[in-house]
Amino acid sequence: MSRPFNFSAGPAAMPAEVLQQAANEMLDWRGSGMSVMEMSHRGKEFGEIMGAAQADLRELLAIPDNFHILFMQGGGLAENAIVPLNISRGGRVDFVVTGSWSQKSIKEAARYAKPALAASNADSNHTTLPAPGSWQLSADAQYVHICSNETIHGIEFHALPDLRVLGSDAPLVIDFSSHVASRTVDWSRVGLAFGGAQKNLGPAGLTLVVVREDLLGHALPTCPSAFDYKTVAANGSMYNTPPTFSIYMAGLTFQWLKRQTEGELRGVAAIEQRNIAKASLLYDFIDGSSLYFNKVARDCRSRMNVPFFLRDEALNDAFLAGARAAGLLQLKGHKSVGGMRASIYNAMPLEGVQALVQFMRDFEKTRA
Amino acid sequence: MSRPFNFSAGPAAMPAEVLQQAANEMLDWRGSGMSVMEMSHRGKEFGEIMGAAQADLRELLAIPDNFHILFMQGGGLAENAIVPLNISRGGRVDFVVTGSWSQKSIKEAARYAKPALAASNADSNHTTLPAPGSWQLSADAQYVHICSNETIHGIEFHALPDLRVLGSDAPLVIDFSSHVASRTVDWSRVGLAFGGAQKNLGPAGLTLVVVREDLLGHALPTCPSAFDYKTVAANGSMYNTPPTFSIYMAGLTFQWLKRQTEGELRGVAAIEQRNIAKASLLYDFIDGSSLYFNKVARDCRSRMNVPFFLRDEALNDAFLAGARAAGLLQLKGHKSVGGMRASIYNAMPLEGVQALVQFMRDFEKTRA
Repeated sequence: MSRPFNFSAGPAAMPAEVLQQAANEMLDWRGSGMSVMEMSHRGKEFGEIMGAAQADLRELLAIPDNFHILFMQGGGLAENAIVPLNISRGGRVDFVVTGSWSQKSIKEAARYAKPALAASNADSNHTTLPAPGSWQLSADAQYVHICSNETIHGIEFHALPDLRVLGSDAPLVIDFSSHVASRTVDWSRVGLAFGGAQKNLGPAGLTLVVVREDLLGHALPTCPSAFDYKTVAANGSMYNTPPTFSIYMAGLTFQWLKRQTEGELRGVAAIEQRNIAKASLLYDFIDGSSLYFNKVARDCRSRMNVPFFLRDEALNDAFLAGARAAGLLQLKGHKSVGGMRASIYNAMPLEGVQALVQFMRDFEKTRA
Repeated sequence: MSRPFNFSAGPAAMPAEVLQQAANEMLDWRGSGMSVMEMSHRGKEFGEIMGAAQADLRELLAIPDNFHILFMQGGGLAENAIVPLNISRGGRVDFVVTGSWSQKSIKEAARYAKPALAASNADSNHTTLPAPGSWQLSADAQYVHICSNETIHGIEFHALPDLRVLGSDAPLVIDFSSHVASRTVDWSRVGLAFGGAQKNLGPAGLTLVVVREDLLGHALPTCPSAFDYKTVAANGSMYNTPPTFSIYMAGLTFQWLKRQTEGELRGVAAIEQRNIAKASLLYDFIDGSSLYFNKVARDCRSRMNVPFFLRDEALNDAFLAGARAAGLLQLKGHKSVGGMRASIYNAMPLEGVQALVQFMRDFEKTRA
């Protein structure tokens, strides 16, 4: 099956196998006589789908038993409120601001808690990561928030900070929306992780929250019941009607992930290896080019989101039109930074990055 | 195409034509080379889908220009918090409690406002509707909340109350989750209407809010930005990433609705006529039977949700097994009331109700 390569930052490309399976099962899920969309969330059929999705994700990401997997709604932006509503206790919370998403998070938290800026990369215009040793952590912080991959600025934490080493007992909160399931996670360093599904997990409208047991049960009185992690956990993510079809699509994606191999590697370890290869190919080409450039420091470049610029911005429109004609879609950069952005999530095969590099090379030859 | 008839209360049956179209377009929406799930919500393709869905819904439900159509997340249960967060101003709010859903609504509102019980049907065990003339409305109410169709108890307001006639200037809030788009709405009597999509509009995970312009801009400081109606409206329901595929499915359902005809009638007027015919057929059969009965007063029986009981409850399991064998799915009643429930939303054809009645008649003959 030949499809264009789709570099959208999210909602983003999904594995064609997953889409094909969903199409095949659309009117009748495995002899049930129902579409997944038509099933009661309380019935045994959807119970199987939900149970498998949670178990597969726990296995894929090696999520320890003392963490709950919650399927929620509202995306990362809603979680910017829901996290402090649940775990700030109205007190001090530390933020490391490294781009647009952590900036939004600290602003929203001020409705519910007392946010402090522990570190920022504003002086480098969001092209570096402040070293954890330099962070000014509050002694009384209820949690420390980072965005572990900034989708717009293309910056990624390649190791999560160990807050204990920094002298803090606070739980680390990570917004991992745009690199979830692209790499392994060291859960010993994490208290809570959240992310919208629409980059690496499935359709928009599903939010993943992975939260350590001891962080449940501290919601502020103004936290809506539907967003109280303790209530959501106690009801198996079915306190309100969950986004059933989106969970099904995520489940198919988890099964696809489990099938991925690279040599001896399986699942997330395999996809991580492939993601490293894809990112290296693209960054190496950009760095060797005289037309294209990337502004991010090498030690924190995102494997998922590769923003880049043409030295001659007058060529931007021709670049995008040529890319589209070559079957390379949605490469325009975010309006706040301009230029181009190639998002190369799990579902982007190496062939897609090879095709992009080939197009970029050809374009450079003919135009530069 | 022969499919079983699915009487689920929600997530519920969808038109087979809609599911088939979604399956056909799953890997390539109209030559775009992308699944709808893979499109940026900021791109022109999804912009078309979103614009058409809003315009079609406005036309179908004759929503006046001074009302905003918002596509949100979290379902009716989340709106139980989001409505008072937006329009209560922390003051008095009146509730008419007529079943499980309005009971949940008044309980949740107490987190943000001062709810008062204006009327209740608890004395009839939720089988009647209290006459609007008997409601004790507060002079200072910020709004009056009703659930215009109680899914579990099978009670429906067949006319919305005119609060001005009752001496109140407060806006009427209706939770119309389980009968939205099944009948026309008198918007002159409504300030705000909300509903989960998973009964009559599309997949679970999408929430519809229709709100009058003057009710925007009064959110409490603790209202999450992603749920502030003014913010959502100002951003065309794209402040956070919307549930794009669910909106697409709802849009296909709106187009299906527009195609419906009954004699001279079109769209919602046509489907309302059909819904009346379906409900009459089922209630008339139940009332004439000596095995089955319905507890709800005739003037407020729901056209959408028909709870019924077998006089010999020992036959329940055989009834459900026989129904399933006859291709009649998800007829078990809600656990809180027991018995059976046939939800006969827009997507249920008359033939489905005829098949149900035929099965019920045959079952009664052989067992009673």
